[in-house]
Amino acid sequence: MRAVLKIEPVAGATLLDVPVPVPGPGEVLIKVKTTAICGTDHHIYIWNEWSQNRIQPPQIMGHELAGEIVELGPGVKNAKVGDYVSAESHIVCGHCTQCMLGEKHVCQNTSILGVDRDGCFAEYVAIPEANLWFNDPVIPMDIAPIQEPLGNAINTVLSGETRGRTMAVFGCGPIGLMAIGVAKACGVSKIAAVDINDYKLDLAKKMKADLTVNSSDLSPVDAIMDYTHGKGVDIVLEMSGASVVFDQIFKVVRPGGRVSLLGLPAKALPVNFSDDIVMRGITIHGITGRRLWQDWIVGRELLSSGLLDLSPIVTHRFDLGDYAKGMDLMTKGECGKIVLYPGGIE
Amino acid sequence: MRAVLKIEPVAGATLLDVPVPVPGPGEVLIKVKTTAICGTDHHIYIWNEWSQNRIQPPQIMGHELAGEIVELGPGVKNAKVGDYVSAESHIVCGHCTQCMLGEKHVCQNTSILGVDRDGCFAEYVAIPEANLWFNDPVIPMDIAPIQEPLGNAINTVLSGETRGRTMAVFGCGPIGLMAIGVAKACGVSKIAAVDINDYKLDLAKKMKADLTVNSSDLSPVDAIMDYTHGKGVDIVLEMSGASVVFDQIFKVVRPGGRVSLLGLPAKALPVNFSDDIVMRGITIHGITGRRLWQDWIVGRELLSSGLLDLSPIVTHRFDLGDYAKGMDLMTKGECGKIVLYPGGIE
Amino acid sequence: MRAVLKIEPVAGATLLDVPVPVPGPGEVLIKVKTTAICGTDHHIYIWNEWSQNRIQPPQIMGHELAGEIVELGPGVKNAKVGDYVSAESHIVCGHCTQCMLGEKHVCQNTSILGVDRDGCFAEYVAIPEANLWFNDPVIPMDIAPIQEPLGNAINTVLSGETRGRTMAVFGCGPIGLMAIGVAKACGVSKIAAVDINDYKLDLAKKMKADLTVNSSDLSPVDAIMDYTHGKGVDIVLEMSGASVVFDQIFKVVRPGGRVSLLGLPAKALPVNFSDDIVMRGITIHGITGRRLWQDWIVGRELLSSGLLDLSPIVTHRFDLGDYAKGMDLMTKGECGKIVLYPGGIE
Amino acid sequence: MRAVLKIEPVAGATLLDVPVPVPGPGEVLIKVKTTAICGTDHHIYIWNEWSQNRIQPPQIMGHELAGEIVELGPGVKNAKVGDYVSAESHIVCGHCTQCMLGEKHVCQNTSILGVDRDGCFAEYVAIPEANLWFNDPVIPMDIAPIQEPLGNAINTVLSGETRGRTMAVFGCGPIGLMAIGVAKACGVSKIAAVDINDYKLDLAKKMKADLTVNSSDLSPVDAIMDYTHGKGVDIVLEMSGASVVFDQIFKVVRPGGRVSLLGLPAKALPVNFSDDIVMRGITIHGITGRRLWQDWIVGRELLSSGLLDLSPIVTHRFDLGDYAKGMDLMTKGECGKIVLYPGGIE
Repeated sequence: MRAVLKIEPVAGATLLDVPVPVPGPGEVLIKVKTTAICGTDHHIYIWNEWSQNRIQPPQIMGHELAGEIVELGPGVKNAKVGDYVSAESHIVCGHCTQCMLGEKHVCQNTSILGVDRDGCFAEYVAIPEANLWFNDPVIPMDIAPIQEPLGNAINTVLSGETRGRTMAVFGCGPIGLMAIGVAKACGVSKIAAVDINDYKLDLAKKMKADLTVNSSDLSPVDAIMDYTHGKGVDIVLEMSGASVVFDQIFKVVRPGGRVSLLGLPAKALPVNFSDDIVMRGITIHGITGRRLWQDWIVGRELLSSGLLDLSPIVTHRFDLGDYAKGMDLMTKGECGKIVLYPGGIE
Repeated sequence: MRAVLKIEPVAGATLLDVPVPVPGPGEVLIKVKTTAICGTDHHIYIWNEWSQNRIQPPQIMGHELAGEIVELGPGVKNAKVGDYVSAESHIVCGHCTQCMLGEKHVCQNTSILGVDRDGCFAEYVAIPEANLWFNDPVIPMDIAPIQEPLGNAINTVLSGETRGRTMAVFGCGPIGLMAIGVAKACGVSKIAAVDINDYKLDLAKKMKADLTVNSSDLSPVDAIMDYTHGKGVDIVLEMSGASVVFDQIFKVVRPGGRVSLLGLPAKALPVNFSDDIVMRGITIHGITGRRLWQDWIVGRELLSSGLLDLSPIVTHRFDLGDYAKGMDLMTKGECGKIVLYPGGIE
Repeated sequence: MRAVLKIEPVAGATLLDVPVPVPGPGEVLIKVKTTAICGTDHHIYIWNEWSQNRIQPPQIMGHELAGEIVELGPGVKNAKVGDYVSAESHIVCGHCTQCMLGEKHVCQNTSILGVDRDGCFAEYVAIPEANLWFNDPVIPMDIAPIQEPLGNAINTVLSGETRGRTMAVFGCGPIGLMAIGVAKACGVSKIAAVDINDYKLDLAKKMKADLTVNSSDLSPVDAIMDYTHGKGVDIVLEMSGASVVFDQIFKVVRPGGRVSLLGLPAKALPVNFSDDIVMRGITIHGITGRRLWQDWIVGRELLSSGLLDLSPIVTHRFDLGDYAKGMDLMTKGECGKIVLYPGGIE
Repeated sequence: MRAVLKIEPVAGATLLDVPVPVPGPGEVLIKVKTTAICGTDHHIYIWNEWSQNRIQPPQIMGHELAGEIVELGPGVKNAKVGDYVSAESHIVCGHCTQCMLGEKHVCQNTSILGVDRDGCFAEYVAIPEANLWFNDPVIPMDIAPIQEPLGNAINTVLSGETRGRTMAVFGCGPIGLMAIGVAKACGVSKIAAVDINDYKLDLAKKMKADLTVNSSDLSPVDAIMDYTHGKGVDIVLEMSGASVVFDQIFKVVRPGGRVSLLGLPAKALPVNFSDDIVMRGITIHGITGRRLWQDWIVGRELLSSGLLDLSPIVTHRFDLGDYAKGMDLMTKGECGKIVLYPGGIE
């Protein structure tokens, strides 16, 4: 089968013919119809510092997918050949304190598809049955794989109250854009979206941001405080990981408000705990992964009801073999979400 | 000034000329531009059993209003002449356990406008400054008075999680209709609305209910279980007070779901606690009034952002003198919300 | 091996020699050291109406246990021979909506040990690995089996805020008694315990109830309202299932308070929704089972830290063969929790 | 009357004879029986940087008190001469967004007793009626004034779940010590207390900390990870404000845990958001003041029930005139809480 692999510890990736995997005990084999490129895949592609410490080549990349089950390994219980599925990419242990408390998204022993084991930038992938998500058939094949990052957006937005609240989103990459859509669907009354890239701010408008601020042009702190008549917003989502933003987020959140952090800044940053967090009674949530399976369920409900439309976010569709075109667009920042078709675009 | 009073302990009401009230210490005088008829006003009008035990005629009726402050009593601190205001109708004590805990909507010593003291079916009304709500100027004069019952709808809908959840609403009177709109604005993916009145079910469709069920025609339990593929809904709102509904609500809520009760059945009803509530892990919320001032703030945000449009609900507008026309329509069930204009309809 | 079975659909039970079970795929075989009698076992023993509809004899009774793993079935992953374990008695499906939402205690497809399959009133029992609880070694063998009903008590007490709150507990059977201990350990400032049995009220005092009320002697409503200076309590736990209590619980809970229901009344009971629940803003929680595994973790922490001492509750210890003595004491109400020793009392 | 004032913008304070204040509209005059020294008072005494920017001498110091109402200003509604009271030191506006949402402890327009207006290191103090707390008569006169800082401890401890959870407390000043007592009373199973001062660690043991760590002697990270078998604690309370601690707190909290911050570090500190907060799913709460009046109510309930005993914390009692002795002890760190008696020690 065709697959995109990281074969050596250097930048780039390689399209190769490799054997179709054999599903092990409790696993299913999925024929991958669509797979989407995540920022993490791009990090691995450009071989950033995090990748160098984590990835063990050779390995098939990719972890966001939709497809059809074509074979069952021994001991599979509920899945059936022909099921239309996507998959949770985090394979959790089930027995650490976090898993026992129902906080599997912070399992101490997580193994990730396409990061710690072979992924889905391929015609077929083997997945544990416990990681399957059975897709609602109304969800189109090019949207289904991005339910997985949608789960991150939902986890971030829903980490506190949203109903009748105001929000600022820093960073309009795909998860930031999804978060805008989710927030609007969940009762956020005013959303200010901040980025340095007009292409992404245009997408933010399509996702119904009420105010867009290009922070290359003007101060997002001034713009947001002005927009909220000096009150600040109830909620800030940090989805960029950009160092400079961490100076801004605590200036625009109102006293008693919350800041949910998904972005991953590259280095330690100074924080004025006394003035910015303690004296103002701020709550901060670090967000990783998706709550299993609450956030998947919320995603299905928002998508299938039409309350959330992710179609503006899927800006490019390529044959799997054209993965490098997608990676280049991501480097340039001229895209929303890119979907790859291992079987070719129909 | 003109005012509609209950002057004797019998059915009906009377339009009279009465003196303009004088605002006492800490009170303001409001020139009433609009006032809306609540189900409670209708109960007082038809002089039902509850009214007979509670109301002490003679008294001016009415408690939902919008208007302009025209005079300040002594000791008023922040309100100003000319302010565009509405009012919380519940005057709370501030020092009982509930008030101290921030649960003022269940204050043990509440006194209600138009129920326990003179109300706002009049050209002017005197209100404690502490009960004023300063209206967002973008909210139209015929919508502003119904922010008060909107607060009930918000309190009911938001008494638990809504985001990505399914719901059934029993009873499509004004607060039930508002609840549908609030729920849709707050992430409820599927809403089934139940009533026995097609006029109200048409309004429910306008408020974006996904399924409407006339329970005179078919079983709401069958319809909702069918609609949810046998799973039941996450949330049930009981907004009718009809006895028969209390047999149905526990059949359509999923195990672990919640039932929020706003309707007031006239008599005790049998409940199968074991099978319907305990074994299925159901949560029930009794809802009264509005959380001060969270629910008012949520209402303002949903209305001013356009996430919620209440205009389909305001079906009739009358001069104050035509209050009896409104009461008759309510008796017949051929209306949504009725707004009265003490200064005449402009 | 020796085992206590329900062999025919009539009252009573039988001690028999039966084959040691063989652990199936994913199961372990446990040598049962201690097993405790639950009210459910007593219901099955006396063959009440619920039992007649649910139980399919012949079947080994019992579902609360502690013991040692002696054999592993095929495919077991983490359990080891020699592990000191107890077990969650509810075998859940893992794929219904409730399980997916992390609400496994209200799984729609639950199968219960000793109710729907052979139980642990026996020298050995086979259990799915997924249902194992690995005991903290500091927890004594006669306390370990009652961690399972302790989970019910924890689920009931912790279904809302307790810290700095007042409480009334109706029904001082073992779970009611455990609930008193849990509540005291979790910040409840005043606890009134109600029963009709002085033996149980004496145990309630040992568990640190502040006030005990024998409702055969005086009105629990009067006693509790007096004790709270007319305010009522923040929390009511209904642990009796007695019809008469359902007239009392809504009279002693303060406006805005919560009522958590664990007891199972035998028939439908009249409820005055308007006055007792809606107008007073009451929250009701139906409680079944234990949250997996939060409530087990809380139980372990409270027990192993010494914050909770359950030893006063274990009033009788018998050899397994003397199960009928235990059942008779339960019929008479002259016991707390009864622990049986399949291997004899050491 | 005798009063301790900051009369000039330099270190120190002065005992003077000043006129008894006259209660203004809505205020009461309190004869101060006891007043306790807060860390804030010590900051003002030593005239630290924060004080230099905030305090406007001349002004009477102090904000923690207990006493008796001796005179009512005009318009007082519920307070009576002879009432035994303490006071909330934060005078809030009541109309900012935070106040309207019930989050008065983060009011944007707070004015503080003894900081922004004359305080209670005096024989008499005038206080707005709205700030009065009516003491439970069972609470002794030397404990009553410290209900106010107890509210800070409660706000910190109760900012998340505690029941059956493990905790580490960094900083064993009076509020840290109170937090240990509150946590133990509210179901925390294991508490590790960290400080550099053995006097304070001895008090921590008296408050029932399970483990005390002098971080001058050994690494608190190693000690706590060892104590929790490498899992980390569910909850960290930062009550020291010491820079070095902010390197430690994120190392000892488990993935998915919470960190509540009350201490006020003097300068900005570097934070590794990616590794320490985002990837581990940590929640951080900045804590200031007390929730009005929930935290006061919880304090009363814990104290009056005996679940919490603060007597070990009150280590010194002085006549008001000996305030400097108290300040010196605080400088040396050789005290818990110091209580001053304006009328002399009886």
